[in-house]
Amino acid sequence: MPSSPARHRRADARRSRAAILDAAVQILDARPDAGMETIAATAGVTRQTVYAHFPSREQLLLAVADRITEEVAAAIDATDPQAGPAADALLRLLDASAQTAHRYPALLQKISALPVSPQADHDRHSPITERIGQVIERGRQTGEFDDRLPLGWLVAATVKLAHSASEERQAGRMSSQEAEHALRTSVLRILGAAPEEDGSSRSR
Amino acid sequence: MPSSPARHRRADARRSRAAILDAAVQILDARPDAGMETIAATAGVTRQTVYAHFPSREQLLLAVADRITEEVAAAIDATDPQAGPAADALLRLLDASAQTAHRYPALLQKISALPVSPQADHDRHSPITERIGQVIERGRQTGEFDDRLPLGWLVAATVKLAHSASEERQAGRMSSQEAEHALRTSVLRILGAAPEEDGSSRSR
Repeated sequence: MPSSPARHRRADARRSRAAILDAAVQILDARPDAGMETIAATAGVTRQTVYAHFPSREQLLLAVADRITEEVAAAIDATDPQAGPAADALLRLLDASAQTAHRYPALLQKISALPVSPQADHDRHSPITERIGQVIERGRQTGEFDDRLPLGWLVAATVKLAHSASEERQAGRMSSQEAEHALRTSVLRILGAAPEEDGSSRSR
Repeated sequence: MPSSPARHRRADARRSRAAILDAAVQILDARPDAGMETIAATAGVTRQTVYAHFPSREQLLLAVADRITEEVAAAIDATDPQAGPAADALLRLLDASAQTAHRYPALLQKISALPVSPQADHDRHSPITERIGQVIERGRQTGEFDDRLPLGWLVAATVKLAHSASEERQAGRMSSQEAEHALRTSVLRILGAAPEEDGSSRSR
C-alpha cells in the first residue's frame, strides 16, 4: 500500500502521543504537579498537541497508568511465568511487578487518587491480573496450590497484598526486605502452598 | 459551671454539625451527587451553616467517612472482641465491619475516590485497625495465630482482604456468601490459624 498523507498524519500522531507519554512518565514522577506546558516542552510538541491527545490532565494520567501497566506486564513476561514450579513463578512475577512499579512511586500515588470507578479500575489492571491468574491456575492444576477458593478471589487477594506491601514500604513502616518477605509468605499461605523455604524444591 | 451564651453557641454548633452529618450520610448514599442545598434542607439548616462547618464538599465527605469509621468501631466493640478464641473474635469483628460498611455502598465508593494521601488514609482508619490489631495480638499471645509476620503487616493485610471481599461482592463477581467464606479462609490462612471449621473448637 503506498503511503498517503493520511497515513503520515496517523504515524505522526502516534509518535507525538508516545513522546508525550514518555515525557509525562518522567516528569510527573519527579514532579507530580508539573504542568501540561512542561510536559509539552519535554516531549518537543506544543501544549495544543498535548491537549489534542489528552483533553484533560486526568485523561493524561490514565494513559500514563495504562502505559505503566503495559510496562509491568512486559516485566512479568520477561520472567517466563509459565516455567518451573508455579510458586516460584508467582514470586518472580510479584518481584518483577514490584520492581517496575517502584520506579514510579510518586506517580502511582497520584494515579491511585484518580476518581475512577471500581469496575474501570478492575478492567485497567487486566493485563496484570490475567497473568497472575494464569500462574495461579497452573499451580492449581499441578496441585501446588489448593483449589478450594475461587481463582478470581485468589488473584484479587494477591494484587491487594502486593499493594499493601508497597504501601507499607513506601510509608516507611516496613523495609523493602520485610515487605517482600511478608508478601511472599502471605500469598503462599493464602494459596495453600508450601512455605516459601520449600517452594523451590517442589516438583511440578 | 453556669451556662453562658458561648456554651450555648457551641452546643448549637455541635447539634447542627451532627444533623448535617446525619443528613449527609442518608442522602449521599442514596444520591452520591446530591447538592449541599439538599443536605442543608434535610438537616434543617441553611446552606450557609453547612458551608460554615464544611467549607468544601470534600471536607464534608471526609467527615462522613470519619463518622462511618466511628460507626464501624462501635459495631466492632459490640461484638466483644476480647471474648473467646481470637479467631472467632476476628471473624465476628470482620462480619460486623462488613455489615456496617455495606449499609453505605455508594457513599463508600465516593469516599474511596477522594484524593487523600496514603498516610492520611492510614491514620483515618486507626479506630478500626487498632481494634483488629488488638485481636490479632491476643491470638498471637495465646498461640492461636503464628507470630512470624509483623503485627502491622497482618493488620494491613486483613484490612486489604476485607476491602477485596467487599469489592468482589459489590461488583457482582462473588455472592455475599462466597466473599465472606473466601475472606474468612484467607485471613485465617495468613494468620497461620487452624482452618475455620476447627476455629471454634480451639481453646484459649
